Amino acid sequence: MKSFRDPVHNLIAFDDNDQLIVDLINTKEVQRLRRIRQLGMSNIAYPGAEHSRFLHSLGVAHLMRRFLDLTALQRGALESELYEFRHIAMAAALLHDLGHGPFSHALESVTDERHEKWTTSIIREPETEVHQVLEAYQHGFSEQVASVIEQTFAPSRAVVKLLSSQLDMDRTDYLLRDSLFTGAGYGTFDVEWLLHVMRIGEVNGEVEVGLDLKKGQSIAEDYIMSRYYMYLHVYFHRTTRAAEVMMEKMLKRAQDIRASIPGLDGLNRLLEGTLKSDAPGAVSAYLELDDAILWAAMHLWTHHSDEILQDLASRLLDRRLFRGIDVDDAKEGHRMYEAMAREMAERGLPPDYYLTLDEVDSHTYQDNYVAPGDAKHNESMQTSKEIYLFDDEGRAVALSQTSFLVEAVRKHDVTVQRVFYPGDLDEK
Amino acid sequence: MKSFRDPVHNLIAFDDNDQLIVDLINTKEVQRLRRIRQLGMSNIAYPGAEHSRFLHSLGVAHLMRRFLDLTALQRGALESELYEFRHIAMAAALLHDLGHGPFSHALESVTDERHEKWTTSIIREPETEVHQVLEAYQHGFSEQVASVIEQTFAPSRAVVKLLSSQLDMDRTDYLLRDSLFTGAGYGTFDVEWLLHVMRIGEVNGEVEVGLDLKKGQSIAEDYIMSRYYMYLHVYFHRTTRAAEVMMEKMLKRAQDIRASIPGLDGLNRLLEGTLKSDAPGAVSAYLELDDAILWAAMHLWTHHSDEILQDLASRLLDRRLFRGIDVDDAKEGHRMYEAMAREMAERGLPPDYYLTLDEVDSHTYQDNYVAPGDAKHNESMQTSKEIYLFDDEGRAVALSQTSFLVEAVRKHDVTVQRVFYPGDLDEK
Amino acid sequence: MKSFRDPVHNLIAFDDNDQLIVDLINTKEVQRLRRIRQLGMSNIAYPGAEHSRFLHSLGVAHLMRRFLDLTALQRGALESELYEFRHIAMAAALLHDLGHGPFSHALESVTDERHEKWTTSIIREPETEVHQVLEAYQHGFSEQVASVIEQTFAPSRAVVKLLSSQLDMDRTDYLLRDSLFTGAGYGTFDVEWLLHVMRIGEVNGEVEVGLDLKKGQSIAEDYIMSRYYMYLHVYFHRTTRAAEVMMEKMLKRAQDIRASIPGLDGLNRLLEGTLKSDAPGAVSAYLELDDAILWAAMHLWTHHSDEILQDLASRLLDRRLFRGIDVDDAKEGHRMYEAMAREMAERGLPPDYYLTLDEVDSHTYQDNYVAPGDAKHNESMQTSKEIYLFDDEGRAVALSQTSFLVEAVRKHDVTVQRVFYPGDLDEK
Amino acid sequence: MKSFRDPVHNLIAFDDNDQLIVDLINTKEVQRLRRIRQLGMSNIAYPGAEHSRFLHSLGVAHLMRRFLDLTALQRGALESELYEFRHIAMAAALLHDLGHGPFSHALESVTDERHEKWTTSIIREPETEVHQVLEAYQHGFSEQVASVIEQTFAPSRAVVKLLSSQLDMDRTDYLLRDSLFTGAGYGTFDVEWLLHVMRIGEVNGEVEVGLDLKKGQSIAEDYIMSRYYMYLHVYFHRTTRAAEVMMEKMLKRAQDIRASIPGLDGLNRLLEGTLKSDAPGAVSAYLELDDAILWAAMHLWTHHSDEILQDLASRLLDRRLFRGIDVDDAKEGHRMYEAMAREMAERGLPPDYYLTLDEVDSHTYQDNYVAPGDAKHNESMQTSKEIYLFDDEGRAVALSQTSFLVEAVRKHDVTVQRVFYPGDLDEK
Repeated sequence: MKSFRDPVHNLIAFDDNDQLIVDLINTKEVQRLRRIRQLGMSNIAYPGAEHSRFLHSLGVAHLMRRFLDLTALQRGALESELYEFRHIAMAAALLHDLGHGPFSHALESVTDERHEKWTTSIIREPETEVHQVLEAYQHGFSEQVASVIEQTFAPSRAVVKLLSSQLDMDRTDYLLRDSLFTGAGYGTFDVEWLLHVMRIGEVNGEVEVGLDLKKGQSIAEDYIMSRYYMYLHVYFHRTTRAAEVMMEKMLKRAQDIRASIPGLDGLNRLLEGTLKSDAPGAVSAYLELDDAILWAAMHLWTHHSDEILQDLASRLLDRRLFRGIDVDDAKEGHRMYEAMAREMAERGLPPDYYLTLDEVDSHTYQDNYVAPGDAKHNESMQTSKEIYLFDDEGRAVALSQTSFLVEAVRKHDVTVQRVFYPGDLDEK
Repeated sequence: MKSFRDPVHNLIAFDDNDQLIVDLINTKEVQRLRRIRQLGMSNIAYPGAEHSRFLHSLGVAHLMRRFLDLTALQRGALESELYEFRHIAMAAALLHDLGHGPFSHALESVTDERHEKWTTSIIREPETEVHQVLEAYQHGFSEQVASVIEQTFAPSRAVVKLLSSQLDMDRTDYLLRDSLFTGAGYGTFDVEWLLHVMRIGEVNGEVEVGLDLKKGQSIAEDYIMSRYYMYLHVYFHRTTRAAEVMMEKMLKRAQDIRASIPGLDGLNRLLEGTLKSDAPGAVSAYLELDDAILWAAMHLWTHHSDEILQDLASRLLDRRLFRGIDVDDAKEGHRMYEAMAREMAERGLPPDYYLTLDEVDSHTYQDNYVAPGDAKHNESMQTSKEIYLFDDEGRAVALSQTSFLVEAVRKHDVTVQRVFYPGDLDEK
Repeated sequence: MKSFRDPVHNLIAFDDNDQLIVDLINTKEVQRLRRIRQLGMSNIAYPGAEHSRFLHSLGVAHLMRRFLDLTALQRGALESELYEFRHIAMAAALLHDLGHGPFSHALESVTDERHEKWTTSIIREPETEVHQVLEAYQHGFSEQVASVIEQTFAPSRAVVKLLSSQLDMDRTDYLLRDSLFTGAGYGTFDVEWLLHVMRIGEVNGEVEVGLDLKKGQSIAEDYIMSRYYMYLHVYFHRTTRAAEVMMEKMLKRAQDIRASIPGLDGLNRLLEGTLKSDAPGAVSAYLELDDAILWAAMHLWTHHSDEILQDLASRLLDRRLFRGIDVDDAKEGHRMYEAMAREMAERGLPPDYYLTLDEVDSHTYQDNYVAPGDAKHNESMQTSKEIYLFDDEGRAVALSQTSFLVEAVRKHDVTVQRVFYPGDLDEK
Repeated sequence: MKSFRDPVHNLIAFDDNDQLIVDLINTKEVQRLRRIRQLGMSNIAYPGAEHSRFLHSLGVAHLMRRFLDLTALQRGALESELYEFRHIAMAAALLHDLGHGPFSHALESVTDERHEKWTTSIIREPETEVHQVLEAYQHGFSEQVASVIEQTFAPSRAVVKLLSSQLDMDRTDYLLRDSLFTGAGYGTFDVEWLLHVMRIGEVNGEVEVGLDLKKGQSIAEDYIMSRYYMYLHVYFHRTTRAAEVMMEKMLKRAQDIRASIPGLDGLNRLLEGTLKSDAPGAVSAYLELDDAILWAAMHLWTHHSDEILQDLASRLLDRRLFRGIDVDDAKEGHRMYEAMAREMAERGLPPDYYLTLDEVDSHTYQDNYVAPGDAKHNESMQTSKEIYLFDDEGRAVALSQTSFLVEAVRKHDVTVQRVFYPGDLDEK
C-alpha cells in the first residue's frame, strides 16, 4: 500500500493488488519526473503552476484505476477485457510521460526528437529500472506497455483509448490539474460525473471510450469547453509563449555554438546534436536532464563569452521577455516577419535568435495540444477524432452531431499568430 | 493594476493605489523568489508542494491589503494609524521573505547566516532594484520597511504585529497555502471569518493584533490546531526531515572540501565560507542562488571524485533516503547516536556526514517553526507570545486563559527526536 | 452589524453603514421568505435544493454591496452615481423577490397575478413593516425602491441594470446558489473574476452593466453556459416539471370547486379567485401564504370528498408523478394532446385536470426563465437583450458579436415540449 | 441504478446490486423524510440549514456502501462478516431516522415517545411499504434491520457499530452535512482520509469500528473537534434554542387545551396525548406528520381563541423570540428561574408556558447529542464510549489515552445553561 495526498484527487492510493505500480513509482526514472514541471514556463503567467509531471503521472494512474474498478462491476464483454489488462493499463498510465524532458517543446525544436519516442526508448532500454521492474513482473511486459503508449497494442483497443483518445485519463487529469494549480478559474468539470457516465462501446468494429447518451452530453460539452479555455487562457498565454519562444532561441544558439558547459553532462551531450533516442548511451544521457539543469545552464550562460547566448539567458532569468504582437493571419504574419527581420539585420541583430513568427493552434475537438510543427505528427496518430455517445443498446452517435456547442467549437479552433521580438529595442 | 490568479486566494489584484507594490513585484530580487520553493524538500513526501516563495509573498501582501481595507471602514485611532502606514505595511509584507535562499535551513546550517539577515541586507543594498524602487517612492523608505521586518519600527507597532506575531498575515498565508498544495487535509481554517473578527487593540500599552472576544475564540483555536497539525504531518514529516538532513550533510561536505563547481558562482562563493550578508559583494553573490543551482550541483557532484560528496548527492537525486528512528528523549537519542557513531566509524564511515540526531520541536502556541539551532534566535525576537481576545470595550484577555484547548496544546509541544542514518547499510 | 453564514458566499455581513438593510431584514415580510423555497418543486429531482428565497435575497444584497464597494474605488461619473444611490440599490436587491408566494408559477396560473406585482404592492402598502422601515429612513423611499424593481427608476439606470439585466446580481446569485444546493455539477462560474471585470458603461445613451473587453469574454461565456445548463438540467427537469404541472392542476381544481379549507385563511381567500394585489386587504391575505400552507392543504385534501382533488393531492404527497413524453414540436404536441384528451374523456377522466401540453423554453441569452405564458410579459420589460463588453475608452461591443459560443447558444434556445399525464393509468 | 446529486458527497449512486435500497427509497415512508428538516429550527440562526432528513439518510447509506466496498478488498474474517451482512447494513443505514417527526425533540417532550421507538415501529408495522419491501426481499428481514437499529443485532456487532458508535456513518454524514449547509465554517474533516484509515477490530471480545494507529489519530481528533464545534456553534446556538424552547411551550399548550385543529389529522391525534408507537393505528397517524403540518398549525393558531396558544404561535411565526440569559451553573439557574417565575406569575403570565431553564450538554467524546432528558436514555444504550486505534497486529488502544487533545475535550463538555423568557415584556 502506498498513498499520496493530492490537491486534485485528494487521496491517491495503490494497495497490494497494485504492487507493480508501487514498484514502478520507486524507480529512478519515474522519480526523475518530480524534477520536471508539467507546464514548462507557464508559471511565468500563473505563478501557482509549479506542479510536476510526477504528480500528473500518479493522477492518470489513479483515474485509470478508478475507471477500471467502476467498470469491473458491470462486466460486459468489453469490460471483462479491461479487467484482464488492468496492470498493463495502469502501468501505461503511470509511464506515459516518462520521456518528457525539461521544457519539452523547446527542447524538441533543437533535437528534433519527440518525447513520445524517449518514453518508449526508456521503457525498452534494458538498463533502466523501469524496464527491469516490468520484466520482473512478467517477461515481455515492457513491450506490451510500450505498445499501449504507441497506440498499437492489439489485444485491447479499449486500453489504448483510455490512455489516448478524445476522452482519456491523461487529458482528464491534466485539465483538472492545470486548472487547479494555475488558479485560472476555467477548465474544471465534474470528474465524478464523468467517470459515472463513461462507457466502453464499439463503433465500426473499433472499441471506443465514450459516454452514456442520455447522461453524458453536457459533461462532454463541459470537458470540451474546459480544453478550449485552457488553450485560450493558459497554454497559449502570450507571456508564457514569449518565454517559451525565448527558451527555443537560447537553446538553438547554445547548440549552434556548441557551447561547452563543463559537467552538465546530459545537456552537453544533447547539445552535441547527435542525441537520438536509439543512439547508444542516449537514454542514460537524456535521463540526466531536468528543469534544474536548464536553469543552472542559464545562470552559467549569463557569464558566457558569446554575446547572444549571454543576452538571451540574462533576459530569461530576469524576466525581460520578448514582446508579442498579434497578427491576423499567416500572410500578414509573414509580411511583418520579413519587414522586421530586414530591419533587425540592419541593426546587426540576427533574426534567427531574436525574431519568431509563432503560430499555435489547437483543434480543440480534434487534436492534442499542437505546438508548432506537431501537426504532421499528430495526424499519423491513431486516436479517433470523435467522442461517442452510446445508447442503452450500445449504438453510437458522434458528439459533434448531437451537440451544437461542440459543433461550434469545432469550427472555431483556437488559433493564435504572433510575432515575438525584443520590445525593449524599440525604445532605444 | 496587476492581477494574479492563485489557488489559495483566487484573485490577487493590486490596483493603481498600490503601484509601489506592482513596481516591487517587477524587481529581479522579488522575481528570484519564483525559483525558490516555499517548502524546500517537502515535495518528497507531498508531491504537490512545489509552490514558490514568490506566490506566498504575493499572498501575504494580499492579506495585508484585505485587512487594511476592512479596518479602514471602522476608523478608530489605531485603525487610522494603520491607514497611514498602508504602503509600508504592504511593502514589508511583500518583501519579508526576500532573503530566503534554496533550502534555507540546510544552507543556514553551513553559513551560519540567517535568511532574515539577508532580507534586510538586500533591502538596504543600494545596488538592488528593490532598494531603488523603495527609495524612488520616498527617500528613507527602504530603512522603514527593513525596520518593520526587523520588528523595530516604532511609529506603528500594529504594522509590525500584523507581519510578525502569533496571528499574522505571514502565517495565515503559509498555513493555508501549505495545506492546499500539499493536499495534507489538515491546516485549513476559515480565513474570511478570521479577517472578519480580527481586531487591533492595546495590551499593557503595547498594540496587539487580536480577535473579537465573542466571535473569535473558535477560529483562534482552529488556527492554532492548524499550526499543530502542519508541524506534525508536514513540516516534521519523517521523509522530509530525512532529505533535509541529507542536504545539510552534503552541503557540509561540499564546504569542507571546498568543492569547486565551475561557474555556479553564488554557490561557490557561499561554499568558500566567507559569505556574510554584510560582506562586500555578498548580496549579489547570494542573489545568484536558487533551487536550480543546488540541484544542478547535485547532478555534477554525482560525478565528483570525492566519494562522500558523490555518494550523498547520488542518494538525494535517486531518493535513497536516510532511515529515521524515533527516540523517546534527548538522553536516549544521545546514547543511540554515540553507539551508532562508534559502529559507523569502525566501518570507515564518517558519522559527521552520515549520522544525525535530529531534534525538531515547535511550541505551537509560542514560537515560529524552529529548526535545530533556531531556538536561541527566536527568543530574542520581540513577537508577543499570546493571542489576545478583545471585548467591546477593548479589554484584552489571553487566549490561553479562555481556551482549554489552547492550554492543552501549549503544554504539548510538537517535539520529534530521531536518529537518521543510511538504513541500506544495515542490509549489507 | 449583522452577519450570516452562507454556503455560497461564506460570510454575508452588513455593518453600521447599512443599518437600513439590517432593519429591512428584520421585518416580517422579509422573514416570511424563509418559508418559501427558492426552487419550488425542484427538490423532488435534487433533494438538496431546499434553500429559501430569504437566503437568496440576502445573497443579492450582498453581491450588490460588493460590486458597489469595488466600483467606489474607481470613481468615474457613472460610478459616483452608483455611490449616491447605494441604499436604494441595496434595498431593492434585498426586496426584489418579496412578492413570491409558494410555488409561484403554479400559483400565478390560478390567480393570473404575477409575483412582481405583489412585490411592489407589499412595498407600497402602508400597513407593512417593510413600507414603514423604508419611509422612516426617508420619506418617499418606498416609491423609489419600488420603481427600481419595476425598472422605471430614472435617476440611475445603472442601479436598475444591476438588478435586472442580462448580467445582474439577481441571476448571479441564483445561478451560483441553485448550482451549489442542487449539487447539479453545472452552473458554477468564477464570481470573483466576474466582479473584478464588471464595468459600467454607456451604449446608445443608455447606461449598461457590462464587462471589460479584454478580460471579460470568457467569464461572460461561462455565465451564459451556466444559465444554459441550469435550464436544461435543473429548471426544466422532467420530474420537477411533472410535479409543477400537477401542482397547477390541483390548485386549479381547488379553485374550481372553491374547496373550503377551514382556517388556512390566505389560501382560502386566494382560492376565492378574486385576489388581486391591489384589492383591499389582498396584501395581508397574500402574506399569510407560504410553502407550509400549501403542503398542509394537500394533507387535508387527501381526505377531501372531491375525488379529483383528493386524487391529485395524494399523488403529489406520495410522489406518484405524472409521466412526461417528449414531443418534437408544437404541432405534434397538439396532435398528441388532442388524441389523449379524447381517450381520457372516454374513460371519464377530465383532461383539464389530468393532461397538459407543457411548453417551456428559455432564450438563454435573451430572456428570463420563461414559464408557460410568461413570454408576453417579459417582452414588455425594459431589460436590454445584450451583454456588452467595454474597451478602455468605454466603447461597447455586443457579446454576441465577439463570441461564436454565445452566438451558437443564442440560436439554440432550450425548448422543451412534453405531454404530461398519469402514466399509471396505462397499466390498468 | 438510481443516482442523486448531493452537495456533500457529490454523487450518490445505488446500482443493480443494491436494488433493495432503491426500492426502499421509493417507499412513501422514506419519501416522507423529504418533508422533515434535519436541523429543526436551526435555519433561524443559519438560513442555509434547510436540508432534509431524506438526503441525510441517503448520505448515511452511501457512506456505508463506500466503507463496505473499501473493506471488501481486504477480506479478513471481520471484513468477510461485513460482506455477508451488506444489505442489512445498508438498509439499516437508510432507515435509521425513519421515525423522526417534525422538530423531534420538541415533539418528544409532549408525547414522551422517542423517535427511535417510532423508527422500529414503522419498520415492523405490516401495513407500511417499508416493511413490505423488506419482507419481500427476505422473510424476517425487517426484524433483522430493526435489531441493527436497536443495537441488539447479534450476528454482526460490526454492522451495529458502523451505524451507532463513537465513529459511525450516521455522525460522519450529519457533521459534514450540517457544516456545509449551515455554512458554519466549522465541522469539516477529510472524509476520504477517514474512510481510508478506518479499521474493524476486536476489543475485549467485542467488535469495534476504529482507526489505524499510525495514520488515524489526527483525523480522529479532527472528527472530535468537529463535533465539539458543531455543538458549540450550531446545535446549542442561543437563537436556535430559543425557538426550540418556544416550540415546546406551544405544543405543550396545544396539548393541554386539546386544541382542535380540523383536518390536520396526525397532529390532532397526537395531541390527544394517547399516541404511543405501539398503540393501534398510531403508526399511520404519526406518518401523517411533517414540518408543514406544524407550521400550518401555527398559522391557524395565530387566530385561535386561546390567548396563550395564539401568542406563542404568533411569536414564532414573526420571529419574536424569547430572550436567553446564560447562567453559570444549575444552582444559579434554579434560583433565577424561581425568582422570575414568581414575578411572572404576579403579572398573570403562566411560567409553564413562558419560562424555561434550559440545560443542554454534550459529552462530546462520549454521548450522542443530548437534549434535556435524554441522558438517562442514552446511558442504557450499548454504544461504546471510546474510539479505538488499532496497530498492525490488531491490538487496540483507546484514543483518549493517546491523544491529549481528546483527553482535554473529554474533560470539558459543552454545557450550556440558560433561562429563556419573553424579553419584550421587560420593556413594557
